[in-house]
Amino acid sequence: MESSVFRVEAMDVPGGTEAIVRGGRDLFPLLPDALYGVERIGVLGWGPQGRAQALNLRDSLAGTGIGVAVGLRPGSRSAENARQNGFSEDDGTLGDWLEVAASADLVILLIADAALAAHHEEIFAVLKPGATIGLSHGFLLGHLRELGSAFPDGHPVIAVCPKGMGDSVRRLYQQGATVNGAGINASVAVHADPDGRAWDRALAWSIALGSPYTFATTLAAEYHSDIVGERAILLGAVHGLVEALYRYFRIDGADPVTAYERSTEAITGPIARTISNDGLVAVRAASGDEDLFDRAYCATYGPARDLVAEIYDEVADGTELRSVVLAEQRLVDRPMTVIGGSPMWSHSAEVHARRGTPDHTVRSARDGGVDAVTAGLFVATMMAQVDEFAARGHAWSEIVNESVIEAVDSLLPYMHARDVAYMVDNCSRTARLGTRRWGPRFQAAYEQIALPHLDQPADPSHIKGFLANPAHEALAAAAELRPSVDISV
Amino acid sequence: MESSVFRVEAMDVPGGTEAIVRGGRDLFPLLPDALYGVERIGVLGWGPQGRAQALNLRDSLAGTGIGVAVGLRPGSRSAENARQNGFSEDDGTLGDWLEVAASADLVILLIADAALAAHHEEIFAVLKPGATIGLSHGFLLGHLRELGSAFPDGHPVIAVCPKGMGDSVRRLYQQGATVNGAGINASVAVHADPDGRAWDRALAWSIALGSPYTFATTLAAEYHSDIVGERAILLGAVHGLVEALYRYFRIDGADPVTAYERSTEAITGPIARTISNDGLVAVRAASGDEDLFDRAYCATYGPARDLVAEIYDEVADGTELRSVVLAEQRLVDRPMTVIGGSPMWSHSAEVHARRGTPDHTVRSARDGGVDAVTAGLFVATMMAQVDEFAARGHAWSEIVNESVIEAVDSLLPYMHARDVAYMVDNCSRTARLGTRRWGPRFQAAYEQIALPHLDQPADPSHIKGFLANPAHEALAAAAELRPSVDISV
Repeated sequence: MESSVFRVEAMDVPGGTEAIVRGGRDLFPLLPDALYGVERIGVLGWGPQGRAQALNLRDSLAGTGIGVAVGLRPGSRSAENARQNGFSEDDGTLGDWLEVAASADLVILLIADAALAAHHEEIFAVLKPGATIGLSHGFLLGHLRELGSAFPDGHPVIAVCPKGMGDSVRRLYQQGATVNGAGINASVAVHADPDGRAWDRALAWSIALGSPYTFATTLAAEYHSDIVGERAILLGAVHGLVEALYRYFRIDGADPVTAYERSTEAITGPIARTISNDGLVAVRAASGDEDLFDRAYCATYGPARDLVAEIYDEVADGTELRSVVLAEQRLVDRPMTVIGGSPMWSHSAEVHARRGTPDHTVRSARDGGVDAVTAGLFVATMMAQVDEFAARGHAWSEIVNESVIEAVDSLLPYMHARDVAYMVDNCSRTARLGTRRWGPRFQAAYEQIALPHLDQPADPSHIKGFLANPAHEALAAAAELRPSVDISV
Repeated sequence: MESSVFRVEAMDVPGGTEAIVRGGRDLFPLLPDALYGVERIGVLGWGPQGRAQALNLRDSLAGTGIGVAVGLRPGSRSAENARQNGFSEDDGTLGDWLEVAASADLVILLIADAALAAHHEEIFAVLKPGATIGLSHGFLLGHLRELGSAFPDGHPVIAVCPKGMGDSVRRLYQQGATVNGAGINASVAVHADPDGRAWDRALAWSIALGSPYTFATTLAAEYHSDIVGERAILLGAVHGLVEALYRYFRIDGADPVTAYERSTEAITGPIARTISNDGLVAVRAASGDEDLFDRAYCATYGPARDLVAEIYDEVADGTELRSVVLAEQRLVDRPMTVIGGSPMWSHSAEVHARRGTPDHTVRSARDGGVDAVTAGLFVATMMAQVDEFAARGHAWSEIVNESVIEAVDSLLPYMHARDVAYMVDNCSRTARLGTRRWGPRFQAAYEQIALPHLDQPADPSHIKGFLANPAHEALAAAAELRPSVDISV
């Protein structure tokens, strides 16, 4: 990662340094120069990412003369909402996606993966010579490889990938008006750089989105960590975990509300807050029963690691992508299943009503504990993903963002606010499908392997390894770059 | 399907007839002629299928001069057991797999799918000119297609696919010494027939295995129905179902033994017996609460059907096969997970001890009922698979064997005898992997969609459709061809 415009810093990480670029509104005046000849940005798509990015970019570039237009598919039902947000056919900031693509110097492809798979050729065909292709996701690279195809020559290909869902990207940007640096981190990648300006354009885009810090990756690494992460700790595993724990506590005699608190509230409340403020090791102490935490951790790590490895193999191999494409075809006749149908979710309102009252069983981290079983299972799963990503060679910034920060700062607050469906179904289609596919695998692993082994003594060397894991240092370094913000939804 | 030697009959099925060939020991004298020039059969592999088929073939061909030899991989740990069963290097009936393949006129490939994928080229290379390639599974066809490859020219390629696990194939053949026609049905397919004798050889092989009746299929249809079936009602779905129901009944207040009886025993005992003797509609009456059965059936059918369709798409597309190949690679470092670890399975001995005692809560079909919820969920899942196979164009014989008969006659008796691991882990590696992959998906569907909707009124037209389903007629026709045998394990 290199820049003629922005300051590239070396962040200390285990084993060395990684290049990062800090963001901030004070840098917005530099954006036009860094964009090098981009006078019009076309954002294709008005899903959560499309909407958030178009709005952030427009705000950040206000007064520079660089226009931001939104391009939609014919018949898109998003047109009205886009107009309500100030994009309009009248001033040329809203239009047909191919027309917008044809008129833009930077075309940001934020339509759903399946639509990209189906229509990328048409989009490529209308691009201006030398226009930059922008992605927020590595999917298209994987798809082109599967087809034996490639991006068109002569066009810079860059990616800026916010490490959080679209709604967070906009919400925290808006908070950033008063808290400098508030925002969602992003990774950037340059896949093709014919004119040597690609890195600066990518960094400009990321800073314009409000990223507190931007780190470098490759399209392939981004794709792998992103798709695997959402199937593992970010969405799939955490859904499987709360389903398993809820039923475990119910069979153990807890009433529904208490079981919900010990399983779900514990994770979305004190565990997430502890990790966000103090890191992962602090959760062990906060559990109030380190021996039980250790046993839960050791019983869980192995099966969770096996699953993350399996998911990673299938994502890297293209197998998972094929299942997503098949699922898209099926969705025409068979809508996606409801994900929040278990009886536990019918109690979320009661649970929320009990927050802050003396009846509330979820003890705060400060007064000594969250459920040690819940904490051990959750942290072990998170560490399993961290370790698998490290073994596969991912940069530390990517590992901690995709395995920890995105969970506690972006996603879990949604489940805390409402329920699992509110978290999962606000994510991309690919994420929603992946959660449904892999969540139950984690649930089975917890039910059949981890929970039945809670009584086995912990392995002291395994716990030592957890405590000494270099990830904690990387997480702390990343945390320093992030201002305290109100992440509640 | 045609034969110059055996009698091909037209079995009535919904919408027409299907060709079948009845088996029987009285036909064994016809085997040498039907095998047309096969003087030596080489069975490669000594897994459950390899062992069962080699033993049955040797017994059936005793005294004909047609030899049966077993070929093993170098260093195979099966050599000792093969010797204990009378195959020996001394008389040339046991040897290295490539040497046995090179000396045989009919080479039956019963090694594991992954080994076939890795070594088929070596095996093809040593075949005698015109030797017949025999398979019991359509996997290799799918694999060759994925590679853009093919079977070698000039060799007949036939398949005989017993519709039951290897242990049943041997055990029921042995019962057939006293009960004519006892055995496991098989399908046959002819993929290449350069000398016009392929159908007769295939039928001879099937009859020699003891198949009560043999029906025709194609390699692709066999592969699809077999791989999908084991992931759905045969293994995956039934595992997910009992896990879901056990926890459902426990949360409802039942003690572990009662919950096990209402979930698992109900299925492996009276429900399986009722289906085997009287068909699927009889289960509804036997449930003792038709309204609750109907509600359970209607709540389950849709999500179960969606899952079977998803599995089918992925099997047909090659995606599932890719995941199996990846899993084989991972198994080197990460052994397959234990599948019977849930607390429920720790109670199976107590449950078995209670059979036949007054405490036994599983009422027999005769005295009016099995758990209506269990029955409705199970039968709906079975019908979902039946209907999906019918929609995909499978022959009725294949549909009812892969969706009903194999379950009640071959597989469920293993779970009845012991537990889920005893059933699942006695199957092929591909089946064991598929069960672990898809079982949890069914479990989640039952927990999140079916069981939460039990209170919704049943749809009368959906129930009418169940009662009038042509599958019942096909199942009855198939049942007539099967003698009553003792299928208990």
